[in-house]
Amino acid sequence: MNNEKKLIEKYLLPLAQNKESLFLKNDAAYFKKHNLVISTDMMIEDKHFKKCVDPNLLAKKLIRINLSDIAAMGAVPTGFFLNIAIPKHKSQCWLKNFTTGLKLDMKKFNLKLYGGDMSSSDKIFLSLTILGKTDSYCHEKNYTKSNSGIFVTGCIGDAGLGYELMSNDLIFNCSTKSKKRLIQKLLLPEPRLSVGKKLLNNADFCTDISDGLLEELSFIAKQSNKQANIFLDKIPLSCASKELFTKNKRKVNDIWEIILSGGEDYELLFCLSKKQKLDKNLKGISKIGYFSSGKGVRIFDSKGKEFKTRKSGFSHF
Amino acid sequence: MNNEKKLIEKYLLPLAQNKESLFLKNDAAYFKKHNLVISTDMMIEDKHFKKCVDPNLLAKKLIRINLSDIAAMGAVPTGFFLNIAIPKHKSQCWLKNFTTGLKLDMKKFNLKLYGGDMSSSDKIFLSLTILGKTDSYCHEKNYTKSNSGIFVTGCIGDAGLGYELMSNDLIFNCSTKSKKRLIQKLLLPEPRLSVGKKLLNNADFCTDISDGLLEELSFIAKQSNKQANIFLDKIPLSCASKELFTKNKRKVNDIWEIILSGGEDYELLFCLSKKQKLDKNLKGISKIGYFSSGKGVRIFDSKGKEFKTRKSGFSHF
Repeated sequence: MNNEKKLIEKYLLPLAQNKESLFLKNDAAYFKKHNLVISTDMMIEDKHFKKCVDPNLLAKKLIRINLSDIAAMGAVPTGFFLNIAIPKHKSQCWLKNFTTGLKLDMKKFNLKLYGGDMSSSDKIFLSLTILGKTDSYCHEKNYTKSNSGIFVTGCIGDAGLGYELMSNDLIFNCSTKSKKRLIQKLLLPEPRLSVGKKLLNNADFCTDISDGLLEELSFIAKQSNKQANIFLDKIPLSCASKELFTKNKRKVNDIWEIILSGGEDYELLFCLSKKQKLDKNLKGISKIGYFSSGKGVRIFDSKGKEFKTRKSGFSHF
Repeated sequence: MNNEKKLIEKYLLPLAQNKESLFLKNDAAYFKKHNLVISTDMMIEDKHFKKCVDPNLLAKKLIRINLSDIAAMGAVPTGFFLNIAIPKHKSQCWLKNFTTGLKLDMKKFNLKLYGGDMSSSDKIFLSLTILGKTDSYCHEKNYTKSNSGIFVTGCIGDAGLGYELMSNDLIFNCSTKSKKRLIQKLLLPEPRLSVGKKLLNNADFCTDISDGLLEELSFIAKQSNKQANIFLDKIPLSCASKELFTKNKRKVNDIWEIILSGGEDYELLFCLSKKQKLDKNLKGISKIGYFSSGKGVRIFDSKGKEFKTRKSGFSHF
């Protein structure tokens, strides 16, 4: 468990002993009586993004990271509350660009703006609280069983690699095109709303990968008192990340570390027992391993050799 | 209209054209279908509070400014989502104190913690989204009629005076006891939940005074296309603020300016037509004026002379 989760467990979990909170173990709270799920996420300058990022993109990312929580619950998003704190001197221009992006994604995802709060501040601070509706059911389980398969959507690790390349241009040899694609994944994730909803009544559990694949797997392994086994050659990689492996043969392990533990992919991670079948219409899903008796997460390479990592995921603390 | 409201009207209101938002004209959004009201408010270091303020008090104030919005809607608060961003180095100690205060006010006001998000940041940033339930009705009107009386709860101006005294010890002659009381009102407002609820089906409209009495009155006057007339000798003052008038005879106008336009009182401001009667069990309510045909806000002293102010209320921009 990372430091952030430890702080939450120690100080906030004791205050969240109610059924709606799902004991802070899921991606959102669940109000069964109202068929509502609600989640909230922040984005802070110099922690989640640099000052230079286009406010238009920031707005979209803020919406999408929150939508990703709604996707993980299998709900349909309806609208949100927005808190904006920005420096006084740039308020007009910044707000114009920010609300242009906001409007585009509100249309794309059919969302309403319900309310919010605005303030000035030295650095940009954003928080969004999103509401989603359910049909009397959502992904409220946070554990799995032995022999259940481990599945992910899309490609894993692009956002983490994009983050490293954005922070340090020289860390890897990489074509301009691939660099752009990896950073694009970081700045503009794709919430997997349709997959999350189609998995309802089927998957053991479902979550989004916000803090890195290993961190999310460790959590579920711990909650389920089981061992997650995953295979490097089953992990879906984008063309851009494959290029990184080819062009940086001496840094293969470093690249895997980032892919496995880098945050902000916002793909879905879910489990299916052998009896549970994947909807045939679902595209872009990969089985990357399975749960067994045991503890923690074990990673194997194509020769069956265990791959050891230095860290499991991202933590703010 | 202050700059903050202008920015909201220009950039955010066009995105909030839905009935739940109440067109951003009220203290919370209203989900009639679910009998829910939801509101959100932020508190930011160096904007809303100084670093030195006890986290225990910050937690209570954060809860109470949000409860004040629920009070203004006449709803019953049920629980909240919490976003916390704090510097890494003080996370343990700060969180311990903060959650101690949180726990006390959660118990006092019977609130649940539903979820949230946590991050590190250079300065403290807090946001809270609160939920309240209604019985199929709430204060959703944001206008009033001619001849309606203007009423407030509690005493007006204490928080504003407390803020000035906290920022500059020497601004006014003031006893230590009075200074403490005024600052206490700033740090620990009392949400008027019971009054807000008792006014349901009775008051023309109801709001909380977060940005200053004149700012709130100007807004309602504009929405109603009416003129607010208020009388200085009817405005309820605390013993502490009365002491300030006595001890600072040359600064009487400055003190009135602060009382009328200082923010953060979190008292309720509401209107009753002549037919609407106040519940006899309601204590601590003062009638301070009435609405008439005309525009804007006019203030009269005890001799019937008009009192002119330099500014109407607080704005972050």
